[in-house]
Amino acid sequence: MKTLHVNLGERSYDILIADRLLDRAGEEIKAVCPQARRLFVVTDSNVFPLYLTRLANSLTAAGFEMTALTVPAGESSKCVSELSGLWEKMLASGLTRTDAVVALGGGVVGDLAGFAAATALRGVDFVQIPTTLLAQVDSSVGGKVAIDLRAGKNLAGAFWQPKLVLMDPDTLNTLPDATFADGMAEVIKYGCIRDKEFFDFLRAHPTRAEIMANIESILYQCCDIKRSVVEEDERDTGSRMVLNFGHTIGHAYELSGHYEQWTHGQAVAAGMCAAAKLGVTLGLTPPELPGQIEAILVPLGLPTAIPCDGDTYAAAIGRDKKGAGADITLVLLDRMGHAVLRKLPKATLLQSIGALPM
Amino acid sequence: MKTLHVNLGERSYDILIADRLLDRAGEEIKAVCPQARRLFVVTDSNVFPLYLTRLANSLTAAGFEMTALTVPAGESSKCVSELSGLWEKMLASGLTRTDAVVALGGGVVGDLAGFAAATALRGVDFVQIPTTLLAQVDSSVGGKVAIDLRAGKNLAGAFWQPKLVLMDPDTLNTLPDATFADGMAEVIKYGCIRDKEFFDFLRAHPTRAEIMANIESILYQCCDIKRSVVEEDERDTGSRMVLNFGHTIGHAYELSGHYEQWTHGQAVAAGMCAAAKLGVTLGLTPPELPGQIEAILVPLGLPTAIPCDGDTYAAAIGRDKKGAGADITLVLLDRMGHAVLRKLPKATLLQSIGALPM
Repeated sequence: MKTLHVNLGERSYDILIADRLLDRAGEEIKAVCPQARRLFVVTDSNVFPLYLTRLANSLTAAGFEMTALTVPAGESSKCVSELSGLWEKMLASGLTRTDAVVALGGGVVGDLAGFAAATALRGVDFVQIPTTLLAQVDSSVGGKVAIDLRAGKNLAGAFWQPKLVLMDPDTLNTLPDATFADGMAEVIKYGCIRDKEFFDFLRAHPTRAEIMANIESILYQCCDIKRSVVEEDERDTGSRMVLNFGHTIGHAYELSGHYEQWTHGQAVAAGMCAAAKLGVTLGLTPPELPGQIEAILVPLGLPTAIPCDGDTYAAAIGRDKKGAGADITLVLLDRMGHAVLRKLPKATLLQSIGALPM
Repeated sequence: MKTLHVNLGERSYDILIADRLLDRAGEEIKAVCPQARRLFVVTDSNVFPLYLTRLANSLTAAGFEMTALTVPAGESSKCVSELSGLWEKMLASGLTRTDAVVALGGGVVGDLAGFAAATALRGVDFVQIPTTLLAQVDSSVGGKVAIDLRAGKNLAGAFWQPKLVLMDPDTLNTLPDATFADGMAEVIKYGCIRDKEFFDFLRAHPTRAEIMANIESILYQCCDIKRSVVEEDERDTGSRMVLNFGHTIGHAYELSGHYEQWTHGQAVAAGMCAAAKLGVTLGLTPPELPGQIEAILVPLGLPTAIPCDGDTYAAAIGRDKKGAGADITLVLLDRMGHAVLRKLPKATLLQSIGALPM
């Protein structure tokens, strides 16, 4: 088992990574939430038949009472009506301030359950058991929880750190290839922004089988990079923005496909390629770098470019919650493994991005 | 002008108290939110015609753009659908992370707008301009923001400290007597739990006119008491519970009247009397104390007792979010001006309270 300690003062917590950890969840949660009597497990309709029974057995064996709350699988559950439903069900089931919410599933479940935990009774303990690669490397560090609004993704939420994150890499074996690849987009991102050696390792291990053969250390490495970034800037007011490499432009792709045509990982993949090319255009990024990123995305079936019109770019950038005013801060690479922040007039960005080679 | 500094580390802020402060709101907000361009003013249908124009003039003069969002007056606006409406309108109007939300109104507006501010874009700055006595002495210190759920009041929310609180006692002149009295229930509470001298001052100044003649110092005194309690226990995990004097039993009265028959202040008034009598029954509270509280409530038209059946008490106490398990912690007085916390079996409380003289 690998253990990563995320150091955020009184909000510090551990990430545990081990095969079959799901079956030991009860005792691990007991250790960090000794006062909790009842756990409210939020999961979705995909994950529920696969893993809920194992989790429930482990929680019951550790002496917890459990209430399971299942939402439909998919991004559309990150909405105010599902949030409201969770609030009501938690309170109707007798949630107290010493109980805890457990998220069993991917990023949608983590974000939704985490926001419910942050706000039910003004905040109760929260444990994450991410079951997708994307959730394991992205959502389980950082404390960002949210729902989507009509105006865009993740626009209502909170910073709410978990008390514990349990990662069972074994759960990745049930993921479809496309969902696995989705998570790989974020894995590759960590290499791009902070660790050339890690990026090179990924280039040398391009298949799912090779990745899974090294999964514990890959998960650890990604979470460790995110941890170091988040510890510097817990509330995302500055340096943490490097985690958005590929994301600002990726948001435009998600918007262009109405959040249905392209997954988050696909949009980030193409967004990283666009940001790399943009960096080349601006004379910041070495010219061979976009090709290196593309070469690692293609075998995974991830897109290296997504068509998008100027209006959609403008809408996405104007609405980007980090973009105050006429300028936008973009994450670019000045070399592989090293991200920098560059403030650009939005107009310049729109002009440059429209002229990029697809 | 009186200024009270609330010291909560990086979440510290000032409370300013002065007549006609509404007309200087723009410059005061500018001083604490220098980066904000646009302010989202949340108000209600009662307050809007009385004070919005004056506030808008002041904000515009200070160079802010303003978006006004009006909700229907009344507790029923503290609901998920109004919250969701605020989120959508704020984001559709281009809220950025450096903008701020301003609550202009009573406790409902403050709680609702504060929760929207705590969660829109995962948290933006929040300024409170409480216009009722209850909001000035209660909601403007403590950082508690929330909406109501079907399961009860204030069950979904956050701790979100304002950047600034502006109190213009002049706004109290437009309050109906009953609404003014509502706030006085909380004013009296502060005397009961922390300051006998202040309680005696209130006994000596029983009319609205006498209170208004001393309003700046009364507001300061109440906020100062709440400040000292909140600074010790910002997240309400222990000692802050003394602020609930009269509230646990008061919740039962609110519930018995379906949150319509009795206002919060009326319920707290009768709740304080019941808690005082309960303290006498338990041998903790001096026997003359309930009468002293009653004597100060009656001239204000506040109830000293509210009929309530055992099932309603049980429902309210079982559902109380502070009450984990079989015991409940109650706030009692061991002398005037000094509150103590006592843990009782819920069964004992239900038995004792049913037997109190009305």
